[in-house]
Amino acid sequence: MSLAEQLRDEQAAYVAAVAGKLTEFLTGRAAIMSTISPDIDPLMGSISNLVTGGKRLRALMCYWGWRGAGGDAAAAEVITAGSALELFQAAALIHDDIIDRSDTRRGGPSVHRRFSELHGEQGWALDPERFGHAAAILTGDLCLSFSEESFTEIGNRAAAGSRARLIFNLMRAEVMAGQYLDILEEVAGPRRDRAGAVSRAQSIIRFKSAKYSTEHPLALGGALAGATDALLRGYSAFALPLGEAFQLRDDVLGVFGDPVTTGKPAGDDLREGKRTVLVAFALEMATPEESGFIDARLGSPGLGDDDVEEIRRIIVECGALQATETLIEEFGQAAFDALESLELDELPKTALRRLAEAAVSRAA
Amino acid sequence: MSLAEQLRDEQAAYVAAVAGKLTEFLTGRAAIMSTISPDIDPLMGSISNLVTGGKRLRALMCYWGWRGAGGDAAAAEVITAGSALELFQAAALIHDDIIDRSDTRRGGPSVHRRFSELHGEQGWALDPERFGHAAAILTGDLCLSFSEESFTEIGNRAAAGSRARLIFNLMRAEVMAGQYLDILEEVAGPRRDRAGAVSRAQSIIRFKSAKYSTEHPLALGGALAGATDALLRGYSAFALPLGEAFQLRDDVLGVFGDPVTTGKPAGDDLREGKRTVLVAFALEMATPEESGFIDARLGSPGLGDDDVEEIRRIIVECGALQATETLIEEFGQAAFDALESLELDELPKTALRRLAEAAVSRAA
Repeated sequence: MSLAEQLRDEQAAYVAAVAGKLTEFLTGRAAIMSTISPDIDPLMGSISNLVTGGKRLRALMCYWGWRGAGGDAAAAEVITAGSALELFQAAALIHDDIIDRSDTRRGGPSVHRRFSELHGEQGWALDPERFGHAAAILTGDLCLSFSEESFTEIGNRAAAGSRARLIFNLMRAEVMAGQYLDILEEVAGPRRDRAGAVSRAQSIIRFKSAKYSTEHPLALGGALAGATDALLRGYSAFALPLGEAFQLRDDVLGVFGDPVTTGKPAGDDLREGKRTVLVAFALEMATPEESGFIDARLGSPGLGDDDVEEIRRIIVECGALQATETLIEEFGQAAFDALESLELDELPKTALRRLAEAAVSRAA
Repeated sequence: MSLAEQLRDEQAAYVAAVAGKLTEFLTGRAAIMSTISPDIDPLMGSISNLVTGGKRLRALMCYWGWRGAGGDAAAAEVITAGSALELFQAAALIHDDIIDRSDTRRGGPSVHRRFSELHGEQGWALDPERFGHAAAILTGDLCLSFSEESFTEIGNRAAAGSRARLIFNLMRAEVMAGQYLDILEEVAGPRRDRAGAVSRAQSIIRFKSAKYSTEHPLALGGALAGATDALLRGYSAFALPLGEAFQLRDDVLGVFGDPVTTGKPAGDDLREGKRTVLVAFALEMATPEESGFIDARLGSPGLGDDDVEEIRRIIVECGALQATETLIEEFGQAAFDALESLELDELPKTALRRLAEAAVSRAA
């Protein structure tokens, strides 16, 4: 079997094992919840639905971090860890979509939207939107608790005081802090120094995305397998710039992506008022009139297609898109260089290289 | 030293130790969060502020459950467990207040309200209320994660698969399920069978409150100290009816309580549309016109003082208040009877009796 075949088979087996673990875990929890009341079913259904899809980027980073540090293929600990990461990601998405007022997720309705639609279908009283938000807050809380339950099931390697547990704790706290900085920049950014906008946006993506999506999951897998400090530092030198490139790509897709591929309406990031690195570059590089035009429109829910088109034109013509693509290139290169200098077996190294390529050049 | 003095001193020492533990824990976390950005300080401040006050009912149930099962006075495990319970309660309150659109908590602004006020003071852009909700969702998530971190710090007695861990997990899931059933009844209740309203309301308080506030904390303390199955069953026979009486008292205070003492505006429960046992009795026992009057007004944010006064009159005159007081009496009696039949040392038994008396007859 070639290395490429071995990689493909092993990765597919892991992804299937994580999916199986998630199903087993959620089926068990759903049985307990059903004894309380069948009315709870929609919460469990929403969680199951969310963890069914997705790129499994975090679980895969964790897996190859584990394998690179000498962990056995298909070991129970790393399957459980992957399942905990996926549940955490689902919880984050549920609350994120409420915060961003995003009505779609992967081409379907987001969780709060599902609950407000249920309200409408059933002809319930009071306000459907408010009910949707409340139900989604609780569903996210439940999912966050499940993520923790799953993580604890790893057992000894993730016990109190273990390195893996510290990484998991830091990951959670940092992503929540990063998300707060993100919504803070939406409201405080317009009053803050415009020249500092790019660096503020870069700090936000480091915490809300790069550390969370790639650095910590890779370190977590490594720590579970007993990686040395030197290996964990090497993982970080690779995964942190990779995560930054990944999020910058996400920001570009949030403005220029094809809705069919991304599963999100075009220009959604602009309507949500996200002050991404891409937008920060534009505010800095465009003419004062153009910057004013963008500033006045960011975050208006009723932003029309014409406005989205005009903001796109400004972003392209002032050079902000190019500046962002250059950054993606630089971060990507830094990540690939760091990866090559890592002393890893060929299989995990190749796997990480492919994950990195997909993360940086993806279209969705 | 008399038993009463010993009880007072030991309980005061425990409450102080939990407060100290919370301060130590949050100070450590705040230092980490500050390295990300000083902008995170208001999230940490909101959490510290919330865990400073409160009745410490859950921590105390846990402590006396521990002591009753033979645990040592002032042991580190039960102090840490109490701190985890208080952090969980703070997280639940933060999200609860968003869900219920409650602007006040213990006489001060609730967390989402604090953030929307901060938005106003700083003259930030976009919508202050929306920012407040988003920031409070994230603060609650952070606090929920902290609660779990604190719980894990208990160490071996709360390791994966331990009875204490299972109780903590079930407690979290049940209270979230109970809160969902609560908001579901607000919207679905008017379309459901009115004759079943009292029993639905009773099921809601069992999960969202009785199991969460008294049964599980007491069992958690017992389990940490290695209680027998028989003792845990005895604890449950005491704590479950106690918790039901506690919540029924809360519901009465939510409609009839003195705002000065409760720290909540008068009639807030009615404005929030809570379909409590008290309200369910009224819907069942009042005339059709009066029931219709209540049904039409529950959950209207603009409910005036005159309407609150009229609903109060109906609740009193139709006998719903008396029926609820009778239930409180019955649940309280069942709890006290169960407590007397428990084989416990005099100190924990007296402590639990006093906690129970305070919970059932309180005015705030």
